[in-house]
Amino acid sequence: MAQHSEGPAAGVDRERLIEALEAVVPESALLISEEERRPYECDGLTAYRRLPMLVVLPETVEQVQAVLRICHQQQVPVVARGAGTGLSGGALPHAGGVLLSLARFNRILKIDTLARTARVQPGVRNLAISEAARPYGLYYAPDPSSQIACSIGGNVAENAGGVHCLKYGLTVHNVLKLEMVTIEGERITLGGDALDAPGYDLLALMHGSEGMLGVIVEITVRLLPVPERAQVVMAAFDSVAAAGAAVGAIIAAGIVPAGLEMMDGFAIEAAEAFVHAGYPLDAAAILLVELDGTNEEVSDQILQIHDLLKQAGATGLRTAQDEAERQRLWLGRKAAFPAVGRLSPDYYCMDGTIPRGRLPEVLNGIAALSREYGLRVANVFHAGDGNLHPLILYDANVPSELDSTEEFGGRILELCVAVGGTVTGEHGVGVEKIDQMCVQFASAELSQFHAVKAAFDAAGLLNPGKAVPTLQRCAEFGAMHVHGGALPFPELERF
Amino acid sequence: MAQHSEGPAAGVDRERLIEALEAVVPESALLISEEERRPYECDGLTAYRRLPMLVVLPETVEQVQAVLRICHQQQVPVVARGAGTGLSGGALPHAGGVLLSLARFNRILKIDTLARTARVQPGVRNLAISEAARPYGLYYAPDPSSQIACSIGGNVAENAGGVHCLKYGLTVHNVLKLEMVTIEGERITLGGDALDAPGYDLLALMHGSEGMLGVIVEITVRLLPVPERAQVVMAAFDSVAAAGAAVGAIIAAGIVPAGLEMMDGFAIEAAEAFVHAGYPLDAAAILLVELDGTNEEVSDQILQIHDLLKQAGATGLRTAQDEAERQRLWLGRKAAFPAVGRLSPDYYCMDGTIPRGRLPEVLNGIAALSREYGLRVANVFHAGDGNLHPLILYDANVPSELDSTEEFGGRILELCVAVGGTVTGEHGVGVEKIDQMCVQFASAELSQFHAVKAAFDAAGLLNPGKAVPTLQRCAEFGAMHVHGGALPFPELERF
Repeated sequence: MAQHSEGPAAGVDRERLIEALEAVVPESALLISEEERRPYECDGLTAYRRLPMLVVLPETVEQVQAVLRICHQQQVPVVARGAGTGLSGGALPHAGGVLLSLARFNRILKIDTLARTARVQPGVRNLAISEAARPYGLYYAPDPSSQIACSIGGNVAENAGGVHCLKYGLTVHNVLKLEMVTIEGERITLGGDALDAPGYDLLALMHGSEGMLGVIVEITVRLLPVPERAQVVMAAFDSVAAAGAAVGAIIAAGIVPAGLEMMDGFAIEAAEAFVHAGYPLDAAAILLVELDGTNEEVSDQILQIHDLLKQAGATGLRTAQDEAERQRLWLGRKAAFPAVGRLSPDYYCMDGTIPRGRLPEVLNGIAALSREYGLRVANVFHAGDGNLHPLILYDANVPSELDSTEEFGGRILELCVAVGGTVTGEHGVGVEKIDQMCVQFASAELSQFHAVKAAFDAAGLLNPGKAVPTLQRCAEFGAMHVHGGALPFPELERF
Repeated sequence: MAQHSEGPAAGVDRERLIEALEAVVPESALLISEEERRPYECDGLTAYRRLPMLVVLPETVEQVQAVLRICHQQQVPVVARGAGTGLSGGALPHAGGVLLSLARFNRILKIDTLARTARVQPGVRNLAISEAARPYGLYYAPDPSSQIACSIGGNVAENAGGVHCLKYGLTVHNVLKLEMVTIEGERITLGGDALDAPGYDLLALMHGSEGMLGVIVEITVRLLPVPERAQVVMAAFDSVAAAGAAVGAIIAAGIVPAGLEMMDGFAIEAAEAFVHAGYPLDAAAILLVELDGTNEEVSDQILQIHDLLKQAGATGLRTAQDEAERQRLWLGRKAAFPAVGRLSPDYYCMDGTIPRGRLPEVLNGIAALSREYGLRVANVFHAGDGNLHPLILYDANVPSELDSTEEFGGRILELCVAVGGTVTGEHGVGVEKIDQMCVQFASAELSQFHAVKAAFDAAGLLNPGKAVPTLQRCAEFGAMHVHGGALPFPELERF
């Protein structure tokens, strides 16, 4: 089985490449000077920066095809980029390659209310789809926290999640059809407008493939009817383990909330100080349980949830009385990362996923590690999905604290894998977690990944060095580093 | 990009193969004589028969690995087989190869009520999973009509559907993890117990891959809580187009029924004569709308559905008053194929899928073609999914009638593709629809399929000649031929 190349392409002739590209894209689509290229040097994983050799902003599918044909011919690496909000460095440029921005593919092509689909270009923002569908009573369900900024193409590339994915699935469950261009410049259609398409499921394969198999140029997503009613219940607990057990009880009762999020005491405190959501400062953990559906269904489920939460030991319950209160309760959750960032010079954000039955055990394990390393941890996460986001607080100016933090983070992810979980839930692998893939997968599986990659891109030109490590590389862990609580996507402040 | 071999392997030394296999599997696992091999000559597509060179029934994963290693080494084709109920010939043996039956992998390994999953072997029957989960109030949602007989491994290989897939998704949406063995004998794990797994989505890729990428040896499926209540509403219409429009109205209203099936006048008549379900004989079409959920939710939705159906011109409505009546209404639908078979010497069953907004138009188109060819058509299908199953009635003893029927069937599938649909919904491609794949896909897409195939099985040993045609082959259409109303899976008679 083939291994794809990871290093920079040797011997790319920049002038020859520019000349060829100038013949196929307008002048405004080619960014050559360092100042113009600078904004593309990183994505949301700001700790990793690299200036691309060239930036190309094509405006048509034909231009994308022509650019890829040239790169294929001249053996130039290509990194596709959506809105650049990704948290794992999937869009980190290649120093010897082209950064292919899909920013100008920003049109909503069709909202089909009968089929309940939207056909959009990849640079369209996630939230813009729901905004365009709203007049028809429809919306697009997956809602990453960065949804006002992130693009749907990037969502596909990273198989993005969000608060509502517990009930409505990840991106892969909400996309019907893709148009993509191969590295050879061929345009192909994956999936279809009907229920299912024959042949190998390349549509699903593209999800989470981080731009390593092809460049997406059009996406048809499924739309859902806006629920008649959505309501959130907040429950307070005096331990994170009790809150974790309550999550299990809700799921075991057969209820699928639209969202089921947990915040621990530290995260509560930080969020409350930042956005005054009205959280109980004396709680060790809160759960936010969102229910949606018809009026009757939601009323019925709220009664059930109240009973379940009380039985699970909730020390306080609050049900949002109106939409403003509901929004306020969610605001604290959505602003939790920057809120924690305000309280510490630096933090590491992890993104592991575990079978949700193991929540109390893993949360206790993280607490024990926190004591062992003497480093504080805030837990804010998609509890219903078992998708953890522990934030380890540290100070990069204290010698050795970064080393301890990295080691601590690595042990959290090892704990996730040990209980049957994975090293990422929704942020992707990118460059950030590429080494952790070695813990997750055996060499037989990694070899199969490489073989599939080679089936699309034998020369390894598409986003080299991301997502799937070479067998030789499997060595050590990494983790996301955010300095001084800086927002990975500044647009979030507008929330 | 590689093309996989389609023809029989030349120069396989049968004696040498038997000798090697005898060293790795018990004597009882090897079927050598013609009488022993005869039962494996076809699957549910009984019109295609071929005696396998050898049949192997391994009992452990290690045995599967050893068998595949031998076949890989000796370059022997391998066709994996579950229960053999498939309708498209996916398990049709290779005359020069091994038929690898997973029938002895028939154990349910674990029901995890907290994670709501079942870990099972591939030979476990679909319905057996729900039976094992029932004591815990859980069930496995996808329900092909053959569910009492078909195996879960075959369901994955064909990405099987069923009545309830409208609400609960296809097989791919209900499987969390697979263990598979590659043609080289490597055991690999795809997916995981947690929400999402990093790396390329090989789990989804295996669904519908018809045994061409690897041999599945273990499956972890998602279980759902048995709904508090399920109820079916039957609505009569005086035209199929009106019934088709009603389907659109239900979906447009934001209701997702658990099942939404249509039968036309001819199918109604046949089913009624066969099982006395209580269908209205004067209707041109009926819809069966199943609703499930909490008591409140179902009551609420039934009222809404009644209103919608009346507005859409329903001439009669009947709501099942108890579970016995609900079962009786479904019995007519589930027995419709054999019921139609009783009224005609022969029939062809098509399996096309269309965007459901195009239902009235396509149904009118089929009726026009029926008049043009002078051949009767019964329509019984998953209307909510847009998954059509037109049954063309003909008499193979009338000269040229088979030719007309094949041409007619081909034009129906062309009509499906023309409105943005596909040539198969849930029966798979197998040998039956392999030529129609040429209509569905351009050569760039087929080439990409071949490249992915080669990434798993470069020598083309796994199920050669199925599912994905070579570029050279793209020539003519085929369709499922059932003689004299014979049941493709005789177990259905026990329903």
